[in-house]
Amino acid sequence: MSAGTTGWPAPRPGAAPLPAALEAAVSLLRNRADASLAELIDFAGIPSVSAQTAHAPDMARAAAWLVARLERAGLQDVALWITAGHPAVYGEWLGAPGAPTALVYGHYDVQPPEPLERWSTPPFTPTVIGERVYGRGVSDDKGPLLLTVQAADALLSATGTLPLNVKFLFEGEEEVGSAHLPELVAQRAAELRADFVISADGGMWSAEFPSLTVSGRGLAALEFSVYGPARDLHSGRHGGALHNPLHAAAALVAGLHDDHGRVTIEGFYDGVQELSAEQRAGLTRLPFSDTEYVAQTGAPAAYGEAGYSTLERQWHRPTVEVNGLWGGYTGEGSKTVLPAEAHVKLTCRLVPGQHPETIAALLAEHLRTHTPPGVRLELRPSDHAAGPYALPDGHPLRGAAGQVLHDLYGTAPVEVGMGGSIPILETFKDVLGLDTVLFSFAVGDENIHAPDEFFRIPRLYEGQEAWLRLWWALGHADG
Amino acid sequence: MSAGTTGWPAPRPGAAPLPAALEAAVSLLRNRADASLAELIDFAGIPSVSAQTAHAPDMARAAAWLVARLERAGLQDVALWITAGHPAVYGEWLGAPGAPTALVYGHYDVQPPEPLERWSTPPFTPTVIGERVYGRGVSDDKGPLLLTVQAADALLSATGTLPLNVKFLFEGEEEVGSAHLPELVAQRAAELRADFVISADGGMWSAEFPSLTVSGRGLAALEFSVYGPARDLHSGRHGGALHNPLHAAAALVAGLHDDHGRVTIEGFYDGVQELSAEQRAGLTRLPFSDTEYVAQTGAPAAYGEAGYSTLERQWHRPTVEVNGLWGGYTGEGSKTVLPAEAHVKLTCRLVPGQHPETIAALLAEHLRTHTPPGVRLELRPSDHAAGPYALPDGHPLRGAAGQVLHDLYGTAPVEVGMGGSIPILETFKDVLGLDTVLFSFAVGDENIHAPDEFFRIPRLYEGQEAWLRLWWALGHADG
Repeated sequence: MSAGTTGWPAPRPGAAPLPAALEAAVSLLRNRADASLAELIDFAGIPSVSAQTAHAPDMARAAAWLVARLERAGLQDVALWITAGHPAVYGEWLGAPGAPTALVYGHYDVQPPEPLERWSTPPFTPTVIGERVYGRGVSDDKGPLLLTVQAADALLSATGTLPLNVKFLFEGEEEVGSAHLPELVAQRAAELRADFVISADGGMWSAEFPSLTVSGRGLAALEFSVYGPARDLHSGRHGGALHNPLHAAAALVAGLHDDHGRVTIEGFYDGVQELSAEQRAGLTRLPFSDTEYVAQTGAPAAYGEAGYSTLERQWHRPTVEVNGLWGGYTGEGSKTVLPAEAHVKLTCRLVPGQHPETIAALLAEHLRTHTPPGVRLELRPSDHAAGPYALPDGHPLRGAAGQVLHDLYGTAPVEVGMGGSIPILETFKDVLGLDTVLFSFAVGDENIHAPDEFFRIPRLYEGQEAWLRLWWALGHADG
Repeated sequence: MSAGTTGWPAPRPGAAPLPAALEAAVSLLRNRADASLAELIDFAGIPSVSAQTAHAPDMARAAAWLVARLERAGLQDVALWITAGHPAVYGEWLGAPGAPTALVYGHYDVQPPEPLERWSTPPFTPTVIGERVYGRGVSDDKGPLLLTVQAADALLSATGTLPLNVKFLFEGEEEVGSAHLPELVAQRAAELRADFVISADGGMWSAEFPSLTVSGRGLAALEFSVYGPARDLHSGRHGGALHNPLHAAAALVAGLHDDHGRVTIEGFYDGVQELSAEQRAGLTRLPFSDTEYVAQTGAPAAYGEAGYSTLERQWHRPTVEVNGLWGGYTGEGSKTVLPAEAHVKLTCRLVPGQHPETIAALLAEHLRTHTPPGVRLELRPSDHAAGPYALPDGHPLRGAAGQVLHDLYGTAPVEVGMGGSIPILETFKDVLGLDTVLFSFAVGDENIHAPDEFFRIPRLYEGQEAWLRLWWALGHADG
């Protein structure tokens, strides 16, 4: 590894000077730049794949790694918080009486690396190429998480204090729907008491200019299977006589949308507000080009619900997506089989006005209603769910985070939506009554959930400085 | 092994007496009943799986076994006929000048035994249970093949002569599409000159009463893939903005049939003749029950092209079937991916009036026309193809074979169709100009291509006698 070319970035034109109280810490972080990157490479080398039971020991290893790192940073009450699933990691610093308390959220689990053959470098051997480090989880969410701990460590090392109280909560189940987090947060509500949440998970919209994400879509998930004959049959002898479960599954999937890309499930759009003229106008002012987007993704063309722009569809319109579909013979060559079963994994993205349980129930009812008599439907509801979220207009977190980005980058951030879902936003709001600002230094193009995930190394350092600035701003907002 | 309870079956009520010329041979076959079964057990113990390269030595062993058996039967010019794939085995007896020549077809290769854990007995340790012998290939096609050699052996041993000239051609690639057979048959056309073909492969419809299969559906195959973005994307961030290849593939598959189960491909039914009132009436007289069929297969209900009965759909109507479909995340749990690609394997079953190349081209054109702009279609034509076949009405083979079954079983056989395809029927017609009668003593319920394949032992003996009767009838048809 050589981080020589990827050291601390030069200040941006127009950036506001660093508050004096942060100078020593930032100076220390500059000196630790290579060490910070080396730590990320070490952390991301642990294959903490929460979805795969074979990786349970690696999950434990990653959690233990984090515990040690929080202790080394000088935090107190550092502990593994056991859940019915993977544990969370907790640590706090409460030495600023009278100042507000920030709950810092992140997750140390990562997506499965499959398909392995599509990676250019080994997913769990993080590899520096130019100004990027490649590896599963470096962007989602190990880099953005780790930099918050490194920032606190530096400020505590340099000054012995922080401008506000901080509670770190890093979970291990974000990539599998944060199933046990609501229960944990409810049990630990007293210990987690805070004034607001700052999330290290989230991601900015673009590497070109700063953005602040102020809304996220929710999520509802469902799997279903279609069963026909009791075993695979010969498609010559039996073809035409019985319904083929793959035909039935394909028809069910195809029937979820009409020819205009609109979801056909009855009641799906109930409660969904149309975008205001102001919102639509705002989106058109963003530096976004369909042509460039399509070129970046490699898709032949953009496509979706008719009557909405690409950004409108990504951020403000709900979807139903098939994430996986399989059945029959998938090996080499031909096997003339009339398969016994077909399987489908579905997720919906939700916008304000929609509720995961309601949408999952409508989807299930739609599938039940449309299953033909020649096959049998089996529904498997998922506990992978999240409500949609929006940080209220005029919320102080929104102003503070926006100002820090303005100060750091010398330009006002754009306020953007997020197509994805962060279930914890809803959890923190419902259970603790707290609003959350997403303050991640990941960028949405960093191949998260895909092969060749990467993180931009300069943003590790920018992120450290930004978090220090944000804590400082929030710690002095009232004083 | 005890074959004591599975000896030569008693004559059926109403059976016609054996022609005197066959009495000595049948008497010999009765004495050899246990030995005949022991030979089948020996032969089927060789795992001659043509699809799996690891079994290449076993393929050679099975071919050598057959060569030795043909030589022991007293046949001449016995040889391995080398092909670019697995060899064929040839042997002849041409001692009946002036009598017709029968080309006898069968195959010594077998299907892969997988899934192994579903077998009740080891697939390549043929095991007698009651009146059945269980093992891979005993029904498809080693039992039906071997009994023809045993019949010839017995008649030659007993009388020194056969009533007609016989050429045996046993291939080793039937289970992988008979890829090299057309070339071999063309190269050896002079040596294979004959008056008709009698196939030991095919199978009867039911064990309850004799049937004669007079038609088989053809086959056309095609694979296609649908590509969207260049790599898997996050379905939260990108969902709704781009077309999902699984949605597009599902819509393409769903669009192959209308709501009445009818294929929507333009021109698909061109040239297909409607069933005659007589044909339909004949089918209704067959002892077939939809209820029993559905119960046997375990499907919730029968389903297919509206306006046709189950047997009509199985035997006389063309189909399009998806044999495999896959894309996206298919592992444990949930992965919120907008997949880069989806894959589909299709086969069509064809009836007279349809041609594999034409149908494959119409299917490809249909898919091209219906692919939406948000995804890219890739078609992969297959060389897995076969024309439909029907033994012409009034063909002497049809009469002779039907009469022999009538004589043997004391009741007229029903004429049935076959949903599956035997590519060699088309090869013999196209290359040698010969019609083929399927004269197998396998039964369609014997789990061919599936675990627990079995062969009914009494049919080994009935088959031996039937082949002698058929040869005798065909040898004396003109005299």
